[in-house]
Amino acid sequence: MKKKLSGPTLRRLPRYYRIVCEHFERGEEYIRSVEIARRLDVDETQVRKDIAAINYSGKPKIGFNTKEFKAHLESFLDLSNAKKAFLIGAGSLGLALAKYTGFNKYGLDIIALFDVDPHKIGLKIAEKEIFHISEFTEKVCEQDIKIVIIAIPGEEAQKMATLAVNSGIKAIWNFAPINIEVPKEIIVANQDIAADFVILSMKIDENKG
Amino acid sequence: MKKKLSGPTLRRLPRYYRIVCEHFERGEEYIRSVEIARRLDVDETQVRKDIAAINYSGKPKIGFNTKEFKAHLESFLDLSNAKKAFLIGAGSLGLALAKYTGFNKYGLDIIALFDVDPHKIGLKIAEKEIFHISEFTEKVCEQDIKIVIIAIPGEEAQKMATLAVNSGIKAIWNFAPINIEVPKEIIVANQDIAADFVILSMKIDENKG
Repeated sequence: MKKKLSGPTLRRLPRYYRIVCEHFERGEEYIRSVEIARRLDVDETQVRKDIAAINYSGKPKIGFNTKEFKAHLESFLDLSNAKKAFLIGAGSLGLALAKYTGFNKYGLDIIALFDVDPHKIGLKIAEKEIFHISEFTEKVCEQDIKIVIIAIPGEEAQKMATLAVNSGIKAIWNFAPINIEVPKEIIVANQDIAADFVILSMKIDENKG
Repeated sequence: MKKKLSGPTLRRLPRYYRIVCEHFERGEEYIRSVEIARRLDVDETQVRKDIAAINYSGKPKIGFNTKEFKAHLESFLDLSNAKKAFLIGAGSLGLALAKYTGFNKYGLDIIALFDVDPHKIGLKIAEKEIFHISEFTEKVCEQDIKIVIIAIPGEEAQKMATLAVNSGIKAIWNFAPINIEVPKEIIVANQDIAADFVILSMKIDENKG
């Protein structure tokens, strides 16, 4: 059983993973915490604490072996077990997510899209077929899907979340700019892209003094 | 001068804002911290601390006036001053971002797109024109743009970041799945969408026990 990590630590781990992968792919054998800290603009002490929290350690003055550290993070973050997901909404955001190549590395496998637009049904996007939403419940059951990504405008997102829950979905990744409400046992991540912009925007103001 | 808030507090404020807006738009005059906490699955004590940190307070047992609290957050987060940005990359992700309606509320105004594909140059997406990347530097200068959004595949993103910095850009919002490197004075937010998935995925594993 893994130790429960704080939210902020958990948020940083995939970012460490990305950097370690980059260094590994460039053929660099070791990476030091000071380098990770610099690249992510995080305090070095924090980087060391986070890595200690996942029971990994490097060699003094040499750093972390990129191949081993990468493998450790993959195991800890359970990245090698691909997680199948359905995507509701074949609009511009849905298509962008379906085509996004960065997901594979993190174990997310979007296997089908759902929409209501008759012109889109039957098309394939990045080898994933678009089905009519009326087939959703049946296909969730058939393919034992636990995760759904919602990528439709606000008003409809709540209805789709309710449909997903009624179909047996356990986790919802919501890209609609509303907070969806579901039973407490369902895991929801509200991806508020615009909110992330506010952080950037506040930092610009800080820099102005 | 605003007090410097912690990163996690800053990340939660736009989410509080979204909920307060929803309640305000539904005509609800007050919202209590317990309700905010429940909606965001954050500890209530944390919600109270965060709100105190931005020098706002509610009425005991009644809560926060939604109209006033909304205005306070807008002022604190500087949401009413629209921030103009250019977007590099008119691929599927770029187009989705250009069309995304959730940005207006947070003061982000994408005013033009840049790409290299001759078939796309001159087209308009959600009233924003697509220009050739060779016009980028000139237009940044002309329109006094400080923010650029990069929405192109990994390999090219670093080149575009360098171009942006050389053109006078002060802040980069990077959607490419690589960590871009820029001079220290440039503000960078790496939006690693896939990394956010890992958090959701880890929570699913936790729920399994």
